[in-house]
Amino acid sequence: MSTEKKTVKDFKIEGNILAPFTPFKENGDVDLEIIPKYVDLILKYNIPNVFVLGTTGEGATLTVEERKQVTEAWARAVDNKPLTIIAHVGGANLRESMDLASHAETVDGVQAIAATGSVYYKPKTEDVEVDYIKQIAAEAPSLPFFYYDIDFMTGIKLNVSSLAQLATKVIPTFRGIKHSSKSIASMVNCSMIGGVQVINGAVDQYLAALTCGMEWPVLGVPCTAPIATKIKEAYDQGDMKTAREQQEYLQRLYNLRDSVGGGNGVLRAIVKLIDGIDFGRSRCPIPYPTQDNIDTLKQGLIDLEFL
Amino acid sequence: MSTEKKTVKDFKIEGNILAPFTPFKENGDVDLEIIPKYVDLILKYNIPNVFVLGTTGEGATLTVEERKQVTEAWARAVDNKPLTIIAHVGGANLRESMDLASHAETVDGVQAIAATGSVYYKPKTEDVEVDYIKQIAAEAPSLPFFYYDIDFMTGIKLNVSSLAQLATKVIPTFRGIKHSSKSIASMVNCSMIGGVQVINGAVDQYLAALTCGMEWPVLGVPCTAPIATKIKEAYDQGDMKTAREQQEYLQRLYNLRDSVGGGNGVLRAIVKLIDGIDFGRSRCPIPYPTQDNIDTLKQGLIDLEFL
Amino acid sequence: MSTEKKTVKDFKIEGNILAPFTPFKENGDVDLEIIPKYVDLILKYNIPNVFVLGTTGEGATLTVEERKQVTEAWARAVDNKPLTIIAHVGGANLRESMDLASHAETVDGVQAIAATGSVYYKPKTEDVEVDYIKQIAAEAPSLPFFYYDIDFMTGIKLNVSSLAQLATKVIPTFRGIKHSSKSIASMVNCSMIGGVQVINGAVDQYLAALTCGMEWPVLGVPCTAPIATKIKEAYDQGDMKTAREQQEYLQRLYNLRDSVGGGNGVLRAIVKLIDGIDFGRSRCPIPYPTQDNIDTLKQGLIDLEFL
Amino acid sequence: MSTEKKTVKDFKIEGNILAPFTPFKENGDVDLEIIPKYVDLILKYNIPNVFVLGTTGEGATLTVEERKQVTEAWARAVDNKPLTIIAHVGGANLRESMDLASHAETVDGVQAIAATGSVYYKPKTEDVEVDYIKQIAAEAPSLPFFYYDIDFMTGIKLNVSSLAQLATKVIPTFRGIKHSSKSIASMVNCSMIGGVQVINGAVDQYLAALTCGMEWPVLGVPCTAPIATKIKEAYDQGDMKTAREQQEYLQRLYNLRDSVGGGNGVLRAIVKLIDGIDFGRSRCPIPYPTQDNIDTLKQGLIDLEFL
Repeated sequence: MSTEKKTVKDFKIEGNILAPFTPFKENGDVDLEIIPKYVDLILKYNIPNVFVLGTTGEGATLTVEERKQVTEAWARAVDNKPLTIIAHVGGANLRESMDLASHAETVDGVQAIAATGSVYYKPKTEDVEVDYIKQIAAEAPSLPFFYYDIDFMTGIKLNVSSLAQLATKVIPTFRGIKHSSKSIASMVNCSMIGGVQVINGAVDQYLAALTCGMEWPVLGVPCTAPIATKIKEAYDQGDMKTAREQQEYLQRLYNLRDSVGGGNGVLRAIVKLIDGIDFGRSRCPIPYPTQDNIDTLKQGLIDLEFL
Repeated sequence: MSTEKKTVKDFKIEGNILAPFTPFKENGDVDLEIIPKYVDLILKYNIPNVFVLGTTGEGATLTVEERKQVTEAWARAVDNKPLTIIAHVGGANLRESMDLASHAETVDGVQAIAATGSVYYKPKTEDVEVDYIKQIAAEAPSLPFFYYDIDFMTGIKLNVSSLAQLATKVIPTFRGIKHSSKSIASMVNCSMIGGVQVINGAVDQYLAALTCGMEWPVLGVPCTAPIATKIKEAYDQGDMKTAREQQEYLQRLYNLRDSVGGGNGVLRAIVKLIDGIDFGRSRCPIPYPTQDNIDTLKQGLIDLEFL
Repeated sequence: MSTEKKTVKDFKIEGNILAPFTPFKENGDVDLEIIPKYVDLILKYNIPNVFVLGTTGEGATLTVEERKQVTEAWARAVDNKPLTIIAHVGGANLRESMDLASHAETVDGVQAIAATGSVYYKPKTEDVEVDYIKQIAAEAPSLPFFYYDIDFMTGIKLNVSSLAQLATKVIPTFRGIKHSSKSIASMVNCSMIGGVQVINGAVDQYLAALTCGMEWPVLGVPCTAPIATKIKEAYDQGDMKTAREQQEYLQRLYNLRDSVGGGNGVLRAIVKLIDGIDFGRSRCPIPYPTQDNIDTLKQGLIDLEFL
Repeated sequence: MSTEKKTVKDFKIEGNILAPFTPFKENGDVDLEIIPKYVDLILKYNIPNVFVLGTTGEGATLTVEERKQVTEAWARAVDNKPLTIIAHVGGANLRESMDLASHAETVDGVQAIAATGSVYYKPKTEDVEVDYIKQIAAEAPSLPFFYYDIDFMTGIKLNVSSLAQLATKVIPTFRGIKHSSKSIASMVNCSMIGGVQVINGAVDQYLAALTCGMEWPVLGVPCTAPIATKIKEAYDQGDMKTAREQQEYLQRLYNLRDSVGGGNGVLRAIVKLIDGIDFGRSRCPIPYPTQDNIDTLKQGLIDLEFL
């Protein structure tokens, strides 16, 4: 629930997580009014968590002030509804991330935070990265902290399980990792640490991630939630045939996405086609599909029975 | 069995596969006399297949003539024993690979071949790579052909499932992929093709690979065979808890290996410690662990109860 | 001069350019009071231009508000002194860069701006990147605009000469490129465009850059200005022997820097040792050399006769 | 001259070096009969050195036996003509390279050898690489040895100047580096060693390389020899304007090459168009330009006044 924070120590994410788009107006301004509609859609899909302003949420294209407004808008929209908000506060640099963490601490309804490291000046060792996130986490002492590892976007190539082991020792609020890097060996090593929740950020690997001990996935589009749920249920019952079939179904959707260029713009178009909500176009330099590509997408979604 | 070739069309690898070391003498020459002892050890571990002269087998450090001798030595050593030989014929270039394929065709006891693409001049498209392997496969018309994808060694970054789809159309003997690249999405896509057997070449991902439809792993050291078997059996029974525990056990072994530098030299030292066979040192530039590292390895293997 | 802006069309950087450090206090806050002292030092070294808040200036570690304050502090410190300020406004995203460009336009004393592209979401084509910088440049219509290409920091791998050719057509204030990427072929191609000033951002390649038609270098530390001047003068006189000797002297300094870990922290320590100004330590995650490393640096600077 | 070997200690390459194509027949076999014609063309262009069977020579696509035949054919064709042969003996592995070096030692007319490191198993340290090439060099004790550094083909990323410093101490025949990697800083450092001749393998950087102390370039096509000579002469006279103009002219040729896909196939087509010799097509997987691309090339060569 949004108004009642779990204690930091006991905090655990339960259930699917959506990484929601940030809605934009025609002129590129943030469109806060779409967010309540998105909350309704998310709940309709029975998704109990949102990871706000990460890579799918395009937090990196927003000013710090806009990020605060968007985070608050999510908290207002959720109100008492059963949706846990994890706010991504990783940003261009330490000072801005600390500012965002400090802000998140004050927003009733935010139940956890997450952050990447510094992208322009990359950390060279796990120690430095832990020092960096420690300062962010300290600004939100009542909020569980998750390290956001996504090497193919940040260019940060660290040993995440070593980092997590260090972090558990020196960051009181450290609770886990959003593991979006693709390495299976790293996932296994992270899961073996104990006391660290590892969240699957690469849903094209969800079933594989389950075998590594990661329970819940971060989804880019709501329509994948029922599929992720089927994968999880089948996996829990040891019905690997069904689990695999559903993962293949997901893969067909991603293949379709990639066939028209991939990226967040395509994901926005998919949700518009399936669920009828227009989140606007991403900010430059994230491209939006052409009308031809949207037509291809539409036919592909029909073929895959999403439409 | 080694003397009776399955028909190409029906060929399917069944069971664990070992990628055996090539034994070297003190002076660096190939030591063919160790091979029969290795066959006995492999059979003792109930491993029914060997993938000869690939990355663990260090085929790339051998002359063409040495490769032929080693392949023949394996065939002689196997004789009528229940060990299927897949010979890697990928090499420096097309002509040498064609020569090796043509030779493999003549060696009684070789039941399939595999090949990487060209490493120095890399293929830029899937079409070119299929054209390349087609010419290799044509030299061994009675042997099933597997494409060997291992991007982190070759630097070849192609869409392997697209390649396999093309290959099935134009290469009569094309039977599958040894998928050592790490991408889970690629594994899922390859497995979805149908009629293409996908072999797991990255055993640190074996359980994840099973969920992608890959049945059998290629192992670098015999002592992992019982663990791989437990993973497979647990997986087949839907006992994911056991499967995951065994994969974590494997991961601990790889973590130990990497803690002393990793690489084939460390694997050679592991087998020497566990099974008592000395395969000699790899050729330059593949390093061998120092005595200090070997001591660390030994204690680690005791801790993990391999010793 | 700082108070009299050249017209955009005629703007051309003349002379060496320093990329000054941003001074920090013990607590990590920006220390604006050091800036006037730095201006005096820069003028003592006869350096006529500063490129403020780029990679050496660590602009990416500052909040937007801090960047505005630092830019203003430079303008105040320069006052009527003969120092041209080029303000780097590239940042985490388009909105913040537009904000910084709009601010720069209002700061009397800023004579040009520069910007990198977006680092987290990377542009995939030259068109998209030109669209991106066009919107930044439009916020400062009276200031000449330079594209800042530095692929090893941003991860943006575009054809810079193609980009510049596009930019000259659609961005009225586009004047040039700060070319910090290392490719000589790209430098030659950029210089061949005509009407585009190409600034050498990789001073370890200064002499090579001169042969590509790039006239002026961006220096990380003031003590290299006399050397750069000697290189330029020798080059202009066709005295390639002297030019080469001086470039080798520079290289010895960089080798020394790299021998203790490299990076901005080492550059800060070098200037402190040579010129006695303490700019404080960089913000996390940029490391500062240990005392041992500083001792090594000191001896090395003595050996190279900088001390 | 070909028949009279200089002493190893005094050996120095003087003048432009051509990296000649290996001619192929329609069926892909090596066509030794074209080589004498190529020698005549090379001499017509006043090129005094050939670097045989390197990257442009596509040695990596030949069997060891073919490489020996080609090397011998060059020696026969050169006979007493003023053309120095440097034979590339770097290959798939140490044993084959040692074999090739040993063979080169016996071929009257070969005056030096060169070798890359191992491509499939890459050396991790400079020490290991020196150990590797030491064993190759030892097979040809009367021939000067050059290390062939070309990181974008081999994937070997070592500090070449450190390697060369080590090599001068332990390899009696070590004479220099063919520096085809692009790093200017590395070139400067290599040239500063003293007693090590550094050859410019990336002719799109020839003028820049001259400023680093590298005297002679390796050319992929004979028609660039007069341009390289003009660059060198202008450079030696301190006429940097002319030197730069000629380098830009070279760059325009490379831009043309790259506009139709680049690679050795395009270079073969260029020489066929300009000099009328057909060297056949490269072996798979090196592509050859389409007829459309050849038409584009032809028009481009006319525009650049090569035709």
